[in-house]
Amino acid sequence: MKAEFIAVGTELLLGEITDTNGAFISRELARVGVDIYYRSVVGDNRERLLEVLDAALHRADVVILSGGLGPTNDDITKQTVSSYFGLTLEENPEAMANLASYFSSRGRQMPEVNRIQACFPKEAEILKNNNGTAPGMFLQRDGKYVFLLPGPPREFEPMVKESVLPRLSSVTGTQLFTYTVHTFGISESALYEKLRDLIDTQDNPTIALYAEPGQVRIRLAAKAADDGEAKAIFLPTEKEINRRVGKYIYGFGEDLTLSEAVVQKLIEKKLKVATAESCTGGLIGKMITDVPGSSAVYNIGYVTYSNAAKNVELSVSKTTLEKYGAVSQQVAEEMAYHLKKKTKAHIAVVSTGIAGPDGGTAEKPVGLVYVAVATHDGVKVEKLNLSGNRDRVRTLAAKHALWMVLSEARAYISE
Amino acid sequence: MKAEFIAVGTELLLGEITDTNGAFISRELARVGVDIYYRSVVGDNRERLLEVLDAALHRADVVILSGGLGPTNDDITKQTVSSYFGLTLEENPEAMANLASYFSSRGRQMPEVNRIQACFPKEAEILKNNNGTAPGMFLQRDGKYVFLLPGPPREFEPMVKESVLPRLSSVTGTQLFTYTVHTFGISESALYEKLRDLIDTQDNPTIALYAEPGQVRIRLAAKAADDGEAKAIFLPTEKEINRRVGKYIYGFGEDLTLSEAVVQKLIEKKLKVATAESCTGGLIGKMITDVPGSSAVYNIGYVTYSNAAKNVELSVSKTTLEKYGAVSQQVAEEMAYHLKKKTKAHIAVVSTGIAGPDGGTAEKPVGLVYVAVATHDGVKVEKLNLSGNRDRVRTLAAKHALWMVLSEARAYISE
Repeated sequence: MKAEFIAVGTELLLGEITDTNGAFISRELARVGVDIYYRSVVGDNRERLLEVLDAALHRADVVILSGGLGPTNDDITKQTVSSYFGLTLEENPEAMANLASYFSSRGRQMPEVNRIQACFPKEAEILKNNNGTAPGMFLQRDGKYVFLLPGPPREFEPMVKESVLPRLSSVTGTQLFTYTVHTFGISESALYEKLRDLIDTQDNPTIALYAEPGQVRIRLAAKAADDGEAKAIFLPTEKEINRRVGKYIYGFGEDLTLSEAVVQKLIEKKLKVATAESCTGGLIGKMITDVPGSSAVYNIGYVTYSNAAKNVELSVSKTTLEKYGAVSQQVAEEMAYHLKKKTKAHIAVVSTGIAGPDGGTAEKPVGLVYVAVATHDGVKVEKLNLSGNRDRVRTLAAKHALWMVLSEARAYISE
Repeated sequence: MKAEFIAVGTELLLGEITDTNGAFISRELARVGVDIYYRSVVGDNRERLLEVLDAALHRADVVILSGGLGPTNDDITKQTVSSYFGLTLEENPEAMANLASYFSSRGRQMPEVNRIQACFPKEAEILKNNNGTAPGMFLQRDGKYVFLLPGPPREFEPMVKESVLPRLSSVTGTQLFTYTVHTFGISESALYEKLRDLIDTQDNPTIALYAEPGQVRIRLAAKAADDGEAKAIFLPTEKEINRRVGKYIYGFGEDLTLSEAVVQKLIEKKLKVATAESCTGGLIGKMITDVPGSSAVYNIGYVTYSNAAKNVELSVSKTTLEKYGAVSQQVAEEMAYHLKKKTKAHIAVVSTGIAGPDGGTAEKPVGLVYVAVATHDGVKVEKLNLSGNRDRVRTLAAKHALWMVLSEARAYISE
């Protein structure tokens, strides 16, 4: 079963807002075995909407439109789709009662313009919207399924789950399951080289790579009757991936961030982490505390942005700072060593580097970052040569620091 | 002049990532007088890409594609577009040299698969990519302009500005100038009420509002022959906006962040800021140090996530912590007072709150945050009742803290 999605709205076309409904509907439809091969964005314009609708209805079994169901003159989706099928709009008494009660329950008078939102072709099914004034509409015509949904994501998303998925899964009877392996520290192309044969030949599960800064997700997708069957399909592939690239894997599961993996492992091992940041300026702390419950593993952090702060707060010696410079292996080592000593955390993690765009030299270019961890086992430093803008350098440095914390936490054996 | 945009990528079509390039290109093309009437998303599939490309070339003068320029077998955009025009790919020596040096400068061996990224039709112009391995491509054929750009926004966006806009504006000869007034602490609807008559009636410059968490941008857009004329068109509107909502304005200029406004003002006034963060966990420090040159105004910050850290590092009394709790006006006050005293910064800023999703009570619900600043003039605390998820609560709290720093810096008179 094939579907198309059309986002309607001049504000989308002008780039004033970004369409997120398209990505959402794609993910949700995949779960019930419906594939989307095309998505479009078109303005609130009758002729252009008709053209896109016509093309979609020729290619697909299901067409889902979002937006243009509001009360103003700009909003023409319902009128245009109805007229495409030769249907006329009539005021629906039940929809009108719902609309009136929506306003009265909020202590507001219903503006006259909203009346159009209660008008539908009598051939259509009205889809309830619990989060706004515009009901959706479902039409079965000429063997095609057409859904009209409101544009705002907080109205659109629940309606997809409540009104679209049940109707489609009852037709397809299939479900797609996904499973994600999260990696850090290996590039997409290097990962591709290592998994190429699996990626290119397997079709249940399929394997795909998705890169973001420093991280690549390996996504497995399987068609299966139920969760148990899906797990059985994933298992051999998961094992093979683990065998080949296990040392880069930080976790498994749909939306697991590196921060979450770190905090979970620290909780599991009952360890505390402390931070001292120079070039990352608080980002490592921010990432740790992105995770609810991180207060169990994180008490204290420092942003030692100046040399003086490194000396006063972390006892990095002035001699070391002068001799090697703030961005050096020696300073990173001293920061980590003294941070651990001062805070008594099990793992102390620090950063010092040149995030750019200025401040680089031939010897110490922008992107040079030292990250270090100290445990009761001693201090480890890594020298990173990162590329990209300031934001990217800082993000990669902070993630690398978290990765080192995770490695230490995994290997941690109490004194 | 009409353009279409095609985002290519199965990961987009599956909803794994959200296309933001579409909204970006729409905004940017508007500046040079080029309108987009259709945008599409299509997978890495030759037949479907050809179909969408063909439809676009029949409707538009300019077609811009993003994605599918990577090194793997999935990436077929360049091959498909070239074959549509009957052109063949050849290895380009200059592109190959650039690619090789990209890898060698990062101390990495070029994987063999990347070689395809240096292959282009000899009829095409190669567009430089300073942020990745995939160069773009520009083709002028049959009176149409076709641009191929890489998919990742950090590569795509600079290439639009460097390679697409100059080529198109030289053809259209028109330019749209924009000017942005940045506000904090007033909602989009409240701002709309105050500026309604201007927004609804003016057409050169037009006025539009764009909301993001805590902030609203007021964007003026003018058609003008040159920069000087544009400035003259903007001036009366800018003055009127300033008169009506001046107290919410943190700055002027295209991409000015609140952090940048804060750092600029601190530099101008030769002031230092120090941070101590509880619920924001390093985010305020991160935001300050997002700005290049922030080391001139920021030496030291603390993440005092536990009560013990607030007591040990910031001398918040145990009695206060026990009596009022960590999330209280009293603790925020003591944190700010002692932070200023300890660091000798001109402005000390702190946060303490409940970011959620857990930890709220009837008395102290999720979203309750105290932010405080201390200067030689004393301590000011603000109590915030923020709504939204953990990320939003923390972001709003950190921005509010920065806004307080900006207010103090503006009003600062030396002792």
